Amino acid sequence: MASLRSRCSKVLAIGRNYADHITELNNARPKQPFFFLKPPSSILERGGGPVLCPKGVSLHYEVELGLVMGKKLRDFDENDSKGALDAIAGYVVGIDMTARNIQDEAKKKGLPWSTAKGFDTFTVLSDFIPRSKVPDPHEAELYLSINDAVKQQDSTNLMLFRIPRILAHISQIMTIEEGDVVLTGTPKGVGPVKVGENMKAGIKFDGVEIEEGKIEVD
Amino acid sequence: MASLRSRCSKVLAIGRNYADHITELNNARPKQPFFFLKPPSSILERGGGPVLCPKGVSLHYEVELGLVMGKKLRDFDENDSKGALDAIAGYVVGIDMTARNIQDEAKKKGLPWSTAKGFDTFTVLSDFIPRSKVPDPHEAELYLSINDAVKQQDSTNLMLFRIPRILAHISQIMTIEEGDVVLTGTPKGVGPVKVGENMKAGIKFDGVEIEEGKIEVD
Ligand SMILES: [Mg+2]
Ligand SMILES: [Mg+2]
Ligand SMILES: [Mg+2]
Repeated sequence: MASLRSRCSKVLAIGRNYADHITELNNARPKQPFFFLKPPSSILERGGGPVLCPKGVSLHYEVELGLVMGKKLRDFDENDSKGALDAIAGYVVGIDMTARNIQDEAKKKGLPWSTAKGFDTFTVLSDFIPRSKVPDPHEAELYLSINDAVKQQDSTNLMLFRIPRILAHISQIMTIEEGDVVLTGTPKGVGPVKVGENMKAGIKFDGVEIEEGKIEVD
Repeated sequence: MASLRSRCSKVLAIGRNYADHITELNNARPKQPFFFLKPPSSILERGGGPVLCPKGVSLHYEVELGLVMGKKLRDFDENDSKGALDAIAGYVVGIDMTARNIQDEAKKKGLPWSTAKGFDTFTVLSDFIPRSKVPDPHEAELYLSINDAVKQQDSTNLMLFRIPRILAHISQIMTIEEGDVVLTGTPKGVGPVKVGENMKAGIKFDGVEIEEGKIEVD
């Protein structure tokens, strides 16, 4: 199969989708989902080398459940829960790498987030997880560790806006294309990672880890 | 030739690159170029129908010179003026459609610009202009009219950051891929356009219009 990156025309990343993460960054709770774009050039797949930390950047990790879209969606109906899951070809674990200092400055100045979120290697993706291995995407446990110390570990059932609502919101603004990747937001526990530290991330269902979802990257 | 849209993995749009446009929007003059991403799904090519105005949106036009990249660029050297022009496959006239009210709110709240800039049909592109028809991209006259009243008309020699600097800045953050489109910022005169109004835009060199650069869209 072609790489996730080559099939992807855009990465759509939801912000502030877990209450405890909103609190930890002192952000306002959104009344509706919001999202930002990450470029396909930021995707780092397994074996693609380390995450690059640009000079002067405070590099933060955010583990997220990713959707790999299997269908074009436009003006999708948020009440169509079955249709939402049917439109997903499969899943990935993603790490939405963020230049936190650049993002903080952009927020203060009212500037775009594209730089803070868009450096090369800033969208770390696991292998493709076939839909058949995901009994319920809203009952997954995501985890991320730095040098084997667990930093993030939460269930996707804590999402403020669930997948059908996310897909409805985005697709009312822009057409979602087959192959596009949707990152569904990060739970609490985000923080800095330094060059040379080891990041591991993954996904479990009922305590059982999914092999394809494992990320290990320096 | 394949469509501009299908060959494009991202649209990179420079903000605030003409002094008089910065003044008209009461923005701060940037010390370095800044840019935002627009998704390929927002590209509207000739014959693709009208620009769509989402409900409740204050729709603004911004005519811009667009670069269609012919080479992958990473960490490009801003002093390499010849290399910059050689990396460009050709040009387009682009209209960076903007949901100004959504953008204003995003700026106030420190939120991403992706929605304000990313709706379907919000990146209007002319046909591809071969490089051979562009004697000097920094000496082009851009124009845009609404119902035949000229609203924007300025030379690209007014750019604050010229093309080599733009390509250097972007490619130090993210790899520019072959086929990517770079919009180089809009001169003064931006404003609202309503459903049913007719937009024309184009590009001239020494008063002579380039046929491929003509846009006419409702
Ligand atoms: Mg593509
Ligand atoms: Mg995130
Ligand atoms: Mg613009």
